[in-house]
Amino acid sequence: MNVLVTGGAGFIGSHLCDRLLARGAQVWCVDNMHLGRRRNIAHLESRPDFHFFELDVLQREALDSLFAKAGFDAVFHMAANSDIAAGVADSRLDLTLNHLTTLTVLEAMRAHGVKRLFFASTSAVFGENDALLGEDAGPLQPISFYGASKLAAEAYVSVFAHTFGVSAVVLRFPNVIGERATHGVIYDFLAKLRKDASRLQVLGDGNQAKPYLYVGDLIDAMLAAWDKSKDPLSVYHAAGIETTTVREIAEIVVAAAGRPDTCIAYTGGDRGWAGDVPRFRYDISRLQSLGWQPRHHSTDAVRFAVERILANGF
Amino acid sequence: MNVLVTGGAGFIGSHLCDRLLARGAQVWCVDNMHLGRRRNIAHLESRPDFHFFELDVLQREALDSLFAKAGFDAVFHMAANSDIAAGVADSRLDLTLNHLTTLTVLEAMRAHGVKRLFFASTSAVFGENDALLGEDAGPLQPISFYGASKLAAEAYVSVFAHTFGVSAVVLRFPNVIGERATHGVIYDFLAKLRKDASRLQVLGDGNQAKPYLYVGDLIDAMLAAWDKSKDPLSVYHAAGIETTTVREIAEIVVAAAGRPDTCIAYTGGDRGWAGDVPRFRYDISRLQSLGWQPRHHSTDAVRFAVERILANGF
Repeated sequence: MNVLVTGGAGFIGSHLCDRLLARGAQVWCVDNMHLGRRRNIAHLESRPDFHFFELDVLQREALDSLFAKAGFDAVFHMAANSDIAAGVADSRLDLTLNHLTTLTVLEAMRAHGVKRLFFASTSAVFGENDALLGEDAGPLQPISFYGASKLAAEAYVSVFAHTFGVSAVVLRFPNVIGERATHGVIYDFLAKLRKDASRLQVLGDGNQAKPYLYVGDLIDAMLAAWDKSKDPLSVYHAAGIETTTVREIAEIVVAAAGRPDTCIAYTGGDRGWAGDVPRFRYDISRLQSLGWQPRHHSTDAVRFAVERILANGF
Repeated sequence: MNVLVTGGAGFIGSHLCDRLLARGAQVWCVDNMHLGRRRNIAHLESRPDFHFFELDVLQREALDSLFAKAGFDAVFHMAANSDIAAGVADSRLDLTLNHLTTLTVLEAMRAHGVKRLFFASTSAVFGENDALLGEDAGPLQPISFYGASKLAAEAYVSVFAHTFGVSAVVLRFPNVIGERATHGVIYDFLAKLRKDASRLQVLGDGNQAKPYLYVGDLIDAMLAAWDKSKDPLSVYHAAGIETTTVREIAEIVVAAAGRPDTCIAYTGGDRGWAGDVPRFRYDISRLQSLGWQPRHHSTDAVRFAVERILANGF
């Protein structure tokens, strides 16, 4: 299988490249290096079955050349701005990096007759919703430009799937953690402790509660969904079992990387920043019915990710 | 009340201007004249409380000048490409005219501190879904770029409502009919009969079935939703009671405007064109609970609209 991975030098994209190569795929990895890191793929660059191109998928001509040259069987579209807080400051950043990249990839797939797409979406499409969220649940009322841009991208994936013959798997990621992350709660806490180990400032009151998933479990979920989906459009939710509060994460990080006297201080308020969804819960039974199961419960995933990061670096 | 109506020279927008003026509002009407018609607002142009500007809302500087000059209390954002079939041919047309216009209006509202928005959305955000569709229903899987672009716009309205203090009313229009329409099934049928009254060709098998709403009833629904909504984001569905098939519409139009020997020919297939949703049903109880009721059942609305158009022209 000849596979394009957009955003392949990023956090999740590079783990995906590892696993696709292990399954015997030819992997064509493109990244504009906005959040991608060359070191995430350094161990792959000498392989004959791995092809890296520094390329922005918004550059349609360059993308077309690559499509023409490689003859892709499938596209895993991972390229995105995944930093929700950064996106809140600029109403066009996520529009461009999440929605327009997706539309450009879809247009290129249509032009070159590529029929299979994996699209990385997010729980943020729901906004604040306390229900146990199944894949068909509504309403979809995002509160961040990140969530809105991913919902916009999902909408366009739906059109290409239902009207233009693309077969698409959409997986709405939860909070994904692990080595190679470029931001996120664990990353932030470790960076803060590195600067000042005496004190960890936590945004919000610490009661935000979400299901965290270790990146290895996420890639398992992606590949299970990929292998077993046949509909024009298949949507899945993946998450660790139960939820973990930001307070618990702070305590785990401090226990692993702080000092005995590190104090944890909360800025207060029910969320970390404008656009932060303070809590959500996922119904993951659809993906479980395909045989997928997260190896780590949410809080175990946090502990495991912290251990891996401290052992191997980001 | 000082109100901006974008797309105010269009089919629904011009009817809205009439009604807002009748309620005593100062109406600032802008239109890029893509689908707008000067004749739709000709009867208003001499009024001192009506201000028309030919302006594309994507021109942010011109829009900013108008916001600064007028000091709007509210915006009714009606500007859009409403021709679904036209949008299917070009994946960027609806993105630009529906989604980016909405984002630009939202950004201008935020910049100028305007707090109240009415957004014209559509049943097409749902794609093909046979359920009785309430406002909170999912999944949202559009099959046309029109539906996708309106869903994308809804997503951004949600962000500005939940995170940036805009109070928004979203009404998802059904098939709206009446005088001043620029396209749509009745318009098409009448235009075809005008060319050749001996024969009416109907796209699809005629069994597409949707709830039609007369434009006057729609404006009633808009104003009921507008007057009685207090949440940051209020979403409503409006439609005529029951549904009407395309076959019934063809027969009504031929009876009113054809000849005794006019034959009706069907091209076949379950839909009029790629991206056409062949049937849907709306749960309108949320809007009914505000006291709104359509004056015409769906098929009566079709008859009434045909009569009005034949009497008054488009």
